[in-house]
Amino acid sequence: MNVLMVFAHPEPRSLNAALRDVAIRELETRGHAVRVSDLYAMNWKTAVDRADFLNLDADGRLKVATASSEAFMAGALTEDVKVEQEKLLWADTLILQFPLWWFTMPAILKGWIDRVYAYGFAYGVGEHSDRRWGDRYGEGRLAGKRAMLIVTTGGWAEHYSPRGINGPIDDLLFPINHGILHYPGYDVLPPFVTYRVDRLDEAGFAQTAERLRERMRTLDTTPPIPFRRQNGGEYLIPSLQLRPDLGSAEATGFSLHRDERSPSESGSGNG
Amino acid sequence: MNVLMVFAHPEPRSLNAALRDVAIRELETRGHAVRVSDLYAMNWKTAVDRADFLNLDADGRLKVATASSEAFMAGALTEDVKVEQEKLLWADTLILQFPLWWFTMPAILKGWIDRVYAYGFAYGVGEHSDRRWGDRYGEGRLAGKRAMLIVTTGGWAEHYSPRGINGPIDDLLFPINHGILHYPGYDVLPPFVTYRVDRLDEAGFAQTAERLRERMRTLDTTPPIPFRRQNGGEYLIPSLQLRPDLGSAEATGFSLHRDERSPSESGSGNG
Repeated sequence: MNVLMVFAHPEPRSLNAALRDVAIRELETRGHAVRVSDLYAMNWKTAVDRADFLNLDADGRLKVATASSEAFMAGALTEDVKVEQEKLLWADTLILQFPLWWFTMPAILKGWIDRVYAYGFAYGVGEHSDRRWGDRYGEGRLAGKRAMLIVTTGGWAEHYSPRGINGPIDDLLFPINHGILHYPGYDVLPPFVTYRVDRLDEAGFAQTAERLRERMRTLDTTPPIPFRRQNGGEYLIPSLQLRPDLGSAEATGFSLHRDERSPSESGSGNG
Repeated sequence: MNVLMVFAHPEPRSLNAALRDVAIRELETRGHAVRVSDLYAMNWKTAVDRADFLNLDADGRLKVATASSEAFMAGALTEDVKVEQEKLLWADTLILQFPLWWFTMPAILKGWIDRVYAYGFAYGVGEHSDRRWGDRYGEGRLAGKRAMLIVTTGGWAEHYSPRGINGPIDDLLFPINHGILHYPGYDVLPPFVTYRVDRLDEAGFAQTAERLRERMRTLDTTPPIPFRRQNGGEYLIPSLQLRPDLGSAEATGFSLHRDERSPSESGSGNG
């Protein structure tokens, strides 16, 4: 299996870097090929701007989606972006690893998404018509591949629990797991989250490392989060609202977009 | 009233820039003082790194929260960050304006949050003990001020509706409204969201502009989103879980953290 790890922490001696190395060692020991995009070490250009689109008119108004599409089609994206897109196509599994800063990813990683996820590559893929709204949410260029997050946070697990003040971790990560990973096609595995990292002692690190090794050993067998597929008949087109007969009528929020029936019942099947 | 608008779009001729100017004109016409942080025009440094902490040991390991705290206390944050912090203290109302990219803010704006929201300024404020978990979520250095988002997206409103495939817009924006704005104390107003912006014609723009002017006229009277306060007795300490008797027992997700009772019932009062 080919694994791409995109890593976003500024300090090579950080806990995040130590966990990254634990994961890589375990994967390589098991014969997988691993490539790492260490965004800080690469001095990754973070903000989308005119310079990203080599075929843009010097005087033209920058419409980001249009410019992205035209540059992708013409092969006129910048070399750093093309290299990352090739890595995504090469990898069977994508891992994004980062500390949770303000309840989402650090800016440098968001900038990797904003720039690498070009129109025609990660969005704007497939037929758009009255009957089909593109290949996305379970379909798309990266369909058939797996993805997962490795996240650290200083906060307590309770604070991210279903009734915790920060909001449930799965909901906080939904815009990433569903909106960034499931969107271009990935099957998304449950995230690996480590809490209270500022207080992690040696024994705690050893436990965390072992939990992480176990996740790496089961990367290809762990059942993905059962996000619904856009084009599986569960959403109305073009409103893209969940069919009235699906999900609890009272349910609100992100949980509607998971199909929580058992695999045999839903016929989707995992693993 | 003093208003700070933080603006994150790379194109001066964009719809976003036009809406920004509509908002500014309306505010200035009504006698308010407006300052704008146009992040692309300022060439804002996006990624947190060692260079942000002027008093950091050259050989020291970078622990971001610790370095942020020490630099804030010593006045050793960089000048660009200090200027933005002063603007935040000056402003009675903060507006963040951006196009929704991958269901959250563009990287350059996330980098503004990551860098300006220093430890001791926007987090790590107030007493931390067994009985009190700091001044945050309704308290903190920016308490008593108001904040709101102005957001554009290419997607349809239906796709962001309660049963829409992207997830409800209020839930997608919760990590920002609650986790970034309510956290350091702001009263957070409902966001101003414009959908299908790629198809907006002249008449549509005129309507949108008028809706936006109305929001600017009512900036100081619009009732904020009724997010619960951390230290108002509704959360257990230190687990910071919502008291078992509050919110529906079946409720899940972010809605728990809004107090939907009427102001007279909850005694919170708006306006």
